[in-house]
Amino acid sequence: MQLVETRESEDYIVLAKSLADEFAQTAVARDTKGGTPKQERDRLRQSNLLKLIIPKEYGGLGQTWIVTFKVTREFAKVDSSIAHIFSYHHLGVVIPHIFGSVEQKQRYYSETIRNNWFWCNALNPLDRRTTLTPENNHFRLNGSKSFCSGSQDSDILPITATNQTTGKLNVLAIPTLREGITVHDDWNNMGQRQTDSGSITFDNVLVHSHEILGIGDKPSQPFDTIRACLTQLNLANIYLGIAEGAFEAAKLYTKTSTKPWLTSGVEDATQDPYIIQHYGNMWVDLQAAKSLTDQAGELLQVAWEKEWSLTAEQRGECALYIATAKVAATRVGLDVTNRIFEVMGARATSAKYGFDRYWRNLRTFTLHDPVDYKVKDIGNWALNEKLPKPDFYS
Amino acid sequence: MQLVETRESEDYIVLAKSLADEFAQTAVARDTKGGTPKQERDRLRQSNLLKLIIPKEYGGLGQTWIVTFKVTREFAKVDSSIAHIFSYHHLGVVIPHIFGSVEQKQRYYSETIRNNWFWCNALNPLDRRTTLTPENNHFRLNGSKSFCSGSQDSDILPITATNQTTGKLNVLAIPTLREGITVHDDWNNMGQRQTDSGSITFDNVLVHSHEILGIGDKPSQPFDTIRACLTQLNLANIYLGIAEGAFEAAKLYTKTSTKPWLTSGVEDATQDPYIIQHYGNMWVDLQAAKSLTDQAGELLQVAWEKEWSLTAEQRGECALYIATAKVAATRVGLDVTNRIFEVMGARATSAKYGFDRYWRNLRTFTLHDPVDYKVKDIGNWALNEKLPKPDFYS
Amino acid sequence: MQLVETRESEDYIVLAKSLADEFAQTAVARDTKGGTPKQERDRLRQSNLLKLIIPKEYGGLGQTWIVTFKVTREFAKVDSSIAHIFSYHHLGVVIPHIFGSVEQKQRYYSETIRNNWFWCNALNPLDRRTTLTPENNHFRLNGSKSFCSGSQDSDILPITATNQTTGKLNVLAIPTLREGITVHDDWNNMGQRQTDSGSITFDNVLVHSHEILGIGDKPSQPFDTIRACLTQLNLANIYLGIAEGAFEAAKLYTKTSTKPWLTSGVEDATQDPYIIQHYGNMWVDLQAAKSLTDQAGELLQVAWEKEWSLTAEQRGECALYIATAKVAATRVGLDVTNRIFEVMGARATSAKYGFDRYWRNLRTFTLHDPVDYKVKDIGNWALNEKLPKPDFYS
Amino acid sequence: MQLVETRESEDYIVLAKSLADEFAQTAVARDTKGGTPKQERDRLRQSNLLKLIIPKEYGGLGQTWIVTFKVTREFAKVDSSIAHIFSYHHLGVVIPHIFGSVEQKQRYYSETIRNNWFWCNALNPLDRRTTLTPENNHFRLNGSKSFCSGSQDSDILPITATNQTTGKLNVLAIPTLREGITVHDDWNNMGQRQTDSGSITFDNVLVHSHEILGIGDKPSQPFDTIRACLTQLNLANIYLGIAEGAFEAAKLYTKTSTKPWLTSGVEDATQDPYIIQHYGNMWVDLQAAKSLTDQAGELLQVAWEKEWSLTAEQRGECALYIATAKVAATRVGLDVTNRIFEVMGARATSAKYGFDRYWRNLRTFTLHDPVDYKVKDIGNWALNEKLPKPDFYS
Repeated sequence: MQLVETRESEDYIVLAKSLADEFAQTAVARDTKGGTPKQERDRLRQSNLLKLIIPKEYGGLGQTWIVTFKVTREFAKVDSSIAHIFSYHHLGVVIPHIFGSVEQKQRYYSETIRNNWFWCNALNPLDRRTTLTPENNHFRLNGSKSFCSGSQDSDILPITATNQTTGKLNVLAIPTLREGITVHDDWNNMGQRQTDSGSITFDNVLVHSHEILGIGDKPSQPFDTIRACLTQLNLANIYLGIAEGAFEAAKLYTKTSTKPWLTSGVEDATQDPYIIQHYGNMWVDLQAAKSLTDQAGELLQVAWEKEWSLTAEQRGECALYIATAKVAATRVGLDVTNRIFEVMGARATSAKYGFDRYWRNLRTFTLHDPVDYKVKDIGNWALNEKLPKPDFYS
Repeated sequence: MQLVETRESEDYIVLAKSLADEFAQTAVARDTKGGTPKQERDRLRQSNLLKLIIPKEYGGLGQTWIVTFKVTREFAKVDSSIAHIFSYHHLGVVIPHIFGSVEQKQRYYSETIRNNWFWCNALNPLDRRTTLTPENNHFRLNGSKSFCSGSQDSDILPITATNQTTGKLNVLAIPTLREGITVHDDWNNMGQRQTDSGSITFDNVLVHSHEILGIGDKPSQPFDTIRACLTQLNLANIYLGIAEGAFEAAKLYTKTSTKPWLTSGVEDATQDPYIIQHYGNMWVDLQAAKSLTDQAGELLQVAWEKEWSLTAEQRGECALYIATAKVAATRVGLDVTNRIFEVMGARATSAKYGFDRYWRNLRTFTLHDPVDYKVKDIGNWALNEKLPKPDFYS
Repeated sequence: MQLVETRESEDYIVLAKSLADEFAQTAVARDTKGGTPKQERDRLRQSNLLKLIIPKEYGGLGQTWIVTFKVTREFAKVDSSIAHIFSYHHLGVVIPHIFGSVEQKQRYYSETIRNNWFWCNALNPLDRRTTLTPENNHFRLNGSKSFCSGSQDSDILPITATNQTTGKLNVLAIPTLREGITVHDDWNNMGQRQTDSGSITFDNVLVHSHEILGIGDKPSQPFDTIRACLTQLNLANIYLGIAEGAFEAAKLYTKTSTKPWLTSGVEDATQDPYIIQHYGNMWVDLQAAKSLTDQAGELLQVAWEKEWSLTAEQRGECALYIATAKVAATRVGLDVTNRIFEVMGARATSAKYGFDRYWRNLRTFTLHDPVDYKVKDIGNWALNEKLPKPDFYS
Repeated sequence: MQLVETRESEDYIVLAKSLADEFAQTAVARDTKGGTPKQERDRLRQSNLLKLIIPKEYGGLGQTWIVTFKVTREFAKVDSSIAHIFSYHHLGVVIPHIFGSVEQKQRYYSETIRNNWFWCNALNPLDRRTTLTPENNHFRLNGSKSFCSGSQDSDILPITATNQTTGKLNVLAIPTLREGITVHDDWNNMGQRQTDSGSITFDNVLVHSHEILGIGDKPSQPFDTIRACLTQLNLANIYLGIAEGAFEAAKLYTKTSTKPWLTSGVEDATQDPYIIQHYGNMWVDLQAAKSLTDQAGELLQVAWEKEWSLTAEQRGECALYIATAKVAATRVGLDVTNRIFEVMGARATSAKYGFDRYWRNLRTFTLHDPVDYKVKDIGNWALNEKLPKPDFYS
């Protein structure tokens, strides 16, 4: 079924696995420390993998979202903060493609390749405190933005801001180092601790007109709303990756360290009927989520390739299958990151293993938007045949 | 992803849906009555669909198991007894192919086409009361067999019996009408009521040597054990079909008959947040089971086509994915056939709708073999990397 | 903790158990047949147990609701239709006490004792098709009523009807045999099959003024709304009884009939680790529901004894704990009536055992009012500290 | 139902709540820091609450286990490390009573009061590395012990060690400060971080004969095995307390900080149908666990008071109900400590709230012994009527 896998794409996955192995060595220590994974960010810059989704015509690797998500999932298995900033780079790098003019799409893709830019995320459209005010031929950006993942050490910021003239929300992309921008070191959360998802303040920052994406040059089209699909399926892939990583870590621990229980009557924990049962149940649910996530990935890639010819119905169906995968990945993830402790035993709670980070990361990241409303969207299809209404989260 | 679907195969599915619509009209009444669905069996005989899996070289339709299971699932949506006897015909018709010599495979396929035979199931290898005793150049069959699905009105019986000379269990296939065979009308269960899964007694029944499949002419090979895979995935498909049928019936009822609850604050039951939630949750789980079942179907078809070149590892992997699908289908099925009542309300319990038959059928059929031991098989892979050991159920 | 149990009350429970044993003999056959359990109704009449809740001053047995519910639960273990009609008699016999004047309370209690009346339920306040029209010094009742449990073979009917003069819903109680009343034999449902919960039509039925309960003689008080509490906790007790009965039946079957599974490695099914696990899990949940149900029973009895001094807050707290018990009993019941099959195996689906009736009865009766809205009521307390608003179901 | 609550006992609970409020102020910071809660330990010493379970005749407060567990639960709501060390003091202080001679019981109770000793736990009977070797009239203790909760800053250590002469496991109690004892500061786990559950090494430590409890002076009796009951029910109470604390914290947050979701259509998060549903479901399960835990507490107190007249059957029944409560508390606890995030939203993951500590503490402590084997014990009763076999955990 892996139609899209070529020798080339497999090479990138092999490369990702090798980087993941490297990141795994320090993942527990870095989770404790929090802050910016500067060294790992630089390894990603050197790896070429930041160019995955950029079309070959601009010097990118021209890979699909399917490959991009697979690479993300490899990182998520060992360090979901890395997976987070890596994938939001890709969700950022396509913003001019989706929201901008043809010229903007070309320019940002090309500049990204030329400068090996690391993108991040400062869109947070629910935080409406940023404004864009016209001044001569350009604009001034003021205000604050929260949840700006990957902003520390980033090269370029995609931002939403309310245009004071039109009252509309504009999307813009400007260099992180521009005067007046302060990226705060204020992210300190129970999970996803190295994502730098803190706040940024903008103090009269200069914004050139050509940095504001696609003002008024396109009628509304289904492809305009594709980024929510990308974001949501990216989340599903990271959730699944965390779950798979937790499962693999637990498996290794059970096989090497877990002692059979006093009254179990077995000589090795791997023969305990209840431990085997837990592994069986985790496996069934992981396979289900994997199957749904991969299926949604194939649909999304098709939708992405249709680009401006994508219909509202195709977009809606894509969103529906993505929502389904995300709900399944959320649930199995929460179950697996809890349940692994049952199959490892009390000694696995030692801080040296950091096994709780799987749950902390997943629990944090699955709150991106409420699973209850994803289920509602799906239910509205299942019962009322209404496709999810495009918004920032659907 | 529907690589195997051709125009021809789609025609068979359309035909199956049309037959299913017809069977649906009488499904509730026939469930109450029990006994043999003689008229429906004859409709199947006339439909040509009994020839689906028989290769074209013998006059069959040469379709895949993927198509065969899809047709079965269509029947299961409205009447899982029909799905049961229809699919066990196919599981029966390939028995000489799997267990017999090349000559036997050819002969039984050809005779089935020539006579439009309707096969059934009298293998039940756990019931060891049947014996095969040599007498001159032939054998005599004596004893009883339970759980012989589809035996009433069948044309040919595949049977297991202990060879009194060798002590081994032989597989044979003989005409149902042969002297000394009594098919008892003693199936009266809470579900799968029109499957005629009662008992048969054999009183000194003549069995020709050529009716005993493959005695001593083949060394043991992985393909020998493929029938358990076919049976298990067939079960998963029927479970899933029942769940899908229940879901569809509930959806229609909610939309047309359910009243909004007193304190719900909504004007139509289809807008109730909890009813929408139930539909969303059922949908997620149905999609997961469907995805796993379809995926396993593709693997199984590949394994089937490999035939005698199938390796033990490939067979094992196939069994693993089938087990996974079956566990998922069992669980979502039990949930959906229970939960539909929450979204329909008290009046949906009227006997005239027969909505309880989904649960009764599924609950009965999911006991074919214990789901706990399927999970254990899967867990043994997930933790210990041991593939399921081939037996009658794995 | 059994503060309320006296020697006398224990005697009634012993009597109930003995009657239950008797009813159990025919329960499967009567479930198949449906209709009126005339013989069992007469046994209840002879048993004196219809007088349980009637105060001693009127010739009743003067027992508590705690005892009444325990007796009901004993019946529910073997035959929830009997439990249903038995308990709705008690919910009926107190209607004049709750809704009527002191004189009406006294008269109906006394007449019930004198005539050994068997009450039933024709209140169904959601069905507004019945009207009460003044005519001279009396009234005329017209229209229809659905879901009239226990109406066949009953002696007296409590009914709600819209007073055409005031527009209000009145409660009245009249003899079942009065001219113009037709109790239809139209109950045919998937469960609770011997409850005669069909419809009644009223054709210009004479109603005396003194048969209309408490018109205008009392200001609204919390005790007015106590019947919803009685009904809801009665439901919880019946659900729990069904679950306990299913559990007991399964246990006996596992111990006497279930065979160990092929690959289980145990010699007896009672040693199977997964079967033991199922029993353990069922037991935990049954104990939890039992504990909550008993606790709510003690609260309700206190509330009942407070009678007109009951405050709105006390009534609300009582309703809250009843709702909690009912939700727990619903869930464990649905789980247990499904799960018993896993611990019994395929042969337990034979119609001769009738093991599916536990699920059919429970699934039917748990739809009395939606569990989702019970959970919402509870959530409104848990989060917002709002007690359930009294209505027919809360 | 609170038969055991007197004015005096209520005073202790009020005192505990007031101390808990104080501990709550620093709980998040102390969780991060780990190590010994020295200041809080001293507050407990000053509070008199360490004397709760010591009979009045020795100068103690003479309270029941019911009161002791309630106090523990109050601490667990805000800081389960404090609850842990507080309750293990009580589980320690009764060790001479259970295992010792009458003289030892009296002496240790009296000395504890005189010196205001803070006990801890160094029993860990699964860690068999400690030995007791006779030397003249006394003994020498050597070896190591892991999981010694509350050992830092403790005054006295109850220890198990293998008697080199008899080969049996002896229980002894000696001062923590005795020469040759090193309490290591090596506890660093994902949860229960201020319990000092690290290791101790014993280097030729002098042990007087009278410090070895009850050598050979008593035949085996059911009361000998009561400590496992105390430990297990203490665990259930702490699990429940953690869950209740998480619930209360979430409730406050939802009411004051959670924003309604974008597409919820409600103006306040407290009106969101799915948030209300989560609270309702959490409440039902919390009530169930609370009811079972309180019920088991009453049984255990009765068993404790029976002392040496306790029968094996009574002890077994007590263990059964304790196991039931513990399983229920484990499950609701894991659910609630996960689910609270759904009703609070993404911003609640900020490290400043420390809301993840509920899960980390519970997940860690619920691994004390496997819940799967508790369920098995219960199942063995439910199906096979075998009471739990007394061991260190049952």
